[in-house]
Amino acid sequence: MDNLGIVFLSELVGTALLVLLGCGVVANVALVKNKGFGGGFLMVNVGWGLAVYSGVIVSYNSGAHLNPAVTLGLVASGATEFGSGVPVNVLSVLAYIGAQMVGAIIGAVFCWLAYKQHFDQEPNPANKLGVFSTGPAIRSYGWNLVTEIIGTFVLVFVVIAFGGGRQGESGGLAALGALPVALLVIVIGTSLGGPTGYAINPARDLGPRIAHFILPIKGKGSSDWAYSWVPVVGPIIGGVLAGLVSTALLPILA
Amino acid sequence: MDNLGIVFLSELVGTALLVLLGCGVVANVALVKNKGFGGGFLMVNVGWGLAVYSGVIVSYNSGAHLNPAVTLGLVASGATEFGSGVPVNVLSVLAYIGAQMVGAIIGAVFCWLAYKQHFDQEPNPANKLGVFSTGPAIRSYGWNLVTEIIGTFVLVFVVIAFGGGRQGESGGLAALGALPVALLVIVIGTSLGGPTGYAINPARDLGPRIAHFILPIKGKGSSDWAYSWVPVVGPIIGGVLAGLVSTALLPILA
Amino acid sequence: MDNLGIVFLSELVGTALLVLLGCGVVANVALVKNKGFGGGFLMVNVGWGLAVYSGVIVSYNSGAHLNPAVTLGLVASGATEFGSGVPVNVLSVLAYIGAQMVGAIIGAVFCWLAYKQHFDQEPNPANKLGVFSTGPAIRSYGWNLVTEIIGTFVLVFVVIAFGGGRQGESGGLAALGALPVALLVIVIGTSLGGPTGYAINPARDLGPRIAHFILPIKGKGSSDWAYSWVPVVGPIIGGVLAGLVSTALLPILA
Amino acid sequence: MDNLGIVFLSELVGTALLVLLGCGVVANVALVKNKGFGGGFLMVNVGWGLAVYSGVIVSYNSGAHLNPAVTLGLVASGATEFGSGVPVNVLSVLAYIGAQMVGAIIGAVFCWLAYKQHFDQEPNPANKLGVFSTGPAIRSYGWNLVTEIIGTFVLVFVVIAFGGGRQGESGGLAALGALPVALLVIVIGTSLGGPTGYAINPARDLGPRIAHFILPIKGKGSSDWAYSWVPVVGPIIGGVLAGLVSTALLPILA
Repeated sequence: MDNLGIVFLSELVGTALLVLLGCGVVANVALVKNKGFGGGFLMVNVGWGLAVYSGVIVSYNSGAHLNPAVTLGLVASGATEFGSGVPVNVLSVLAYIGAQMVGAIIGAVFCWLAYKQHFDQEPNPANKLGVFSTGPAIRSYGWNLVTEIIGTFVLVFVVIAFGGGRQGESGGLAALGALPVALLVIVIGTSLGGPTGYAINPARDLGPRIAHFILPIKGKGSSDWAYSWVPVVGPIIGGVLAGLVSTALLPILA
Repeated sequence: MDNLGIVFLSELVGTALLVLLGCGVVANVALVKNKGFGGGFLMVNVGWGLAVYSGVIVSYNSGAHLNPAVTLGLVASGATEFGSGVPVNVLSVLAYIGAQMVGAIIGAVFCWLAYKQHFDQEPNPANKLGVFSTGPAIRSYGWNLVTEIIGTFVLVFVVIAFGGGRQGESGGLAALGALPVALLVIVIGTSLGGPTGYAINPARDLGPRIAHFILPIKGKGSSDWAYSWVPVVGPIIGGVLAGLVSTALLPILA
Repeated sequence: MDNLGIVFLSELVGTALLVLLGCGVVANVALVKNKGFGGGFLMVNVGWGLAVYSGVIVSYNSGAHLNPAVTLGLVASGATEFGSGVPVNVLSVLAYIGAQMVGAIIGAVFCWLAYKQHFDQEPNPANKLGVFSTGPAIRSYGWNLVTEIIGTFVLVFVVIAFGGGRQGESGGLAALGALPVALLVIVIGTSLGGPTGYAINPARDLGPRIAHFILPIKGKGSSDWAYSWVPVVGPIIGGVLAGLVSTALLPILA
Repeated sequence: MDNLGIVFLSELVGTALLVLLGCGVVANVALVKNKGFGGGFLMVNVGWGLAVYSGVIVSYNSGAHLNPAVTLGLVASGATEFGSGVPVNVLSVLAYIGAQMVGAIIGAVFCWLAYKQHFDQEPNPANKLGVFSTGPAIRSYGWNLVTEIIGTFVLVFVVIAFGGGRQGESGGLAALGALPVALLVIVIGTSLGGPTGYAINPARDLGPRIAHFILPIKGKGSSDWAYSWVPVVGPIIGGVLAGLVSTALLPILA
């Protein structure tokens, strides 16, 4: 298999695992009769952080972006190659983002299967959509966008910092090398996740929303397409800004 | 002592520790008058994750499977040897699984002793069984099986990923090398533990169920043998599938 | 850019990130309608600990003080240079502390933007100030000062211990090298944060208080200047004491 | 200063820090008006785990026992020297245990100072004692002893496993080398802490009890001397058993 095929498969599997576990923790906390029902926001934050951890572990060969905002942030930073020697160009960017979208949809399907009965018995359609995609605590597209931009900026800026400067020396740690990203995702959740539920990843939000739209979920309601552009556009803006700023700042800071 | 004897003792001690601490956190949260009573599902997840951590620490010489689904998943992946040079064959597989079962029963006995008075004063027999073995939130053997298959697939797939590819470089970390598995078990609990309580390990579920059946626990009820096959068969299917898929995918992904 | 300019920028960016994420978790837990509303004190502790983690990651080149109490504690310890070869003198101390103050104000502004609507809809002015700055559970300036002195002593004493003796060997870990500080901040929060909310950092408290005073926050109340000296003076005393004691003790202990 | 003087100072400082932070988290959760009031048992577990972490960081030169059960467990294991080349003999054992006791008393005094006003305003004397020392959820000296023996056995058995076999390779990690012990203490708390509050350390329990007895704590009640022998004798038995068993088992397991 050529490099781009490996990248596609690697990003697909990693993002599927990320979304399965990430949407899974929301299902556990939000859908009736689950053992983790009402488990609290910290549990959701820990679940999502370690979901990213798990996804990164199985997709080292593609550099484990698992997020179009990371891919585009790296492009904006002026990187000339992604993980494993794949050069940055239109085709490789499309391979990364395409795989992330397909993987996210697949992960959401498996999450639905794992929680099938709880979806069936959950009376509130909004809780069902909430397992798949984010929604605002107070709907206001402009401010929701600001929150997603800030959250994703932090994600991509620090992720690029992990990979450069002195942090690079820890690259060989592998299994523990994925821990910093998990910690970062946990803190973005605890600290910037209040208003919008921290999509900070267009594939993580749009992929499961498509799955929600397609799947025969019992008693499901709207897929809230009116809001769907916010967790796509916000993270892209935040990621690109972080890529641009990191190019200027990180070589002298970290 | 020959290699198989060491493997047996190592898996027995590790699994006993795993079950003592894992069942212990459920006892603390579920049985009346405990200081951790009502401590929440995240506390259960953290307890189980670090229970596995502790078990792994004391059983490095056997590779610290501590779970028949891991052992059988490695067989399915086409591995030719387990930890410490023991070859994969019928006898070694039986030694691993036998030791895990015996260790799980012993760990459950010590958990009962540590929480003896709380078992005595707990009025609800279901809570007593819940300390030992898992049970479904919504009983439906087919869907419960699906959840256990998915959860165990994630466990074994990522565990094999830890050991291969670039992750292998961190093997020398030892005490911290057990941390990734702990993080993985935490996230499987937070994210896929809602419907069935995540057995994801036949020995962890069947061993304590046997202990529950045998021990003179005051006011105990049924050991729920009708459900007992689900957390045995589901994890085995999930582990074997993970072994097969990892052989195909991991060499090119991680 | 000369060294002092890099230090200034590095401390500014790191402290801004620290305060954005640290104040962010309080906003999430304390302001109405947030998804993390009522998330509990452990969530606040984890958020602040990983906020420091993130700040440290992006400011390695200045040694990642991010706290005047750390800077002054190092001075008191008799250090002759800060991170990256910058000598200890009046000018460099001013550069560090000035950057931390400016960064903290900037971080607080972004936190306000990320939670803009929740500030607007929050009815209680005290909750709004609580996002920016600490306040005492039981007001008593003397005892509040004691608590802040003890908390900051622990912070600076252990931080200096991280950098010296055998701990120095882990310096090359970088991304994971920031983890110990995060763990330390978490435990100071869980264990000494009850009475005063653990400022343990004059910039972290005074910077956001200035931001609170200046920003056009809807329905904001007093910035509580009467208390503002406690989380400045207490941490400075604690940090300087820790610097002095560590010089005497750490060479023979750690 | 000779080696035994260093050991004494190192164990004293480390145990003081451990008890300050460990008793601190209980004060935060249990005493009225604290910001962490009612924070839950997981928060207590995390606080104690990281309290041990912090204590270990500042006492590497003595091997960071911080616990008579660890010291006596190492003696029982047949070790010929403690940390840093100090030989095992009556005098060195007395230096370790004496320093741990003195340090524990000092740490408890500082905890009282940090939470002074909250002790003053707390109406329930039992909550005040609970900050200093452990007590049983269901009083039954025999079974309480069993729980403490099992908990301490796990602690000392795994701690010795950290130091031997392949784990020894991670000795150079230092600051992260203290993390495994923290994780272990967290899981003992979550999983075996329900019935007795997991003293698992005679100095941690008896030292603060003496401080409670001596200090002029407003409205304090009994120091519960009737129970005080359980968290001393239980941990010593558990530690010695672990030392003996680890000598037999660990060379072939870990």
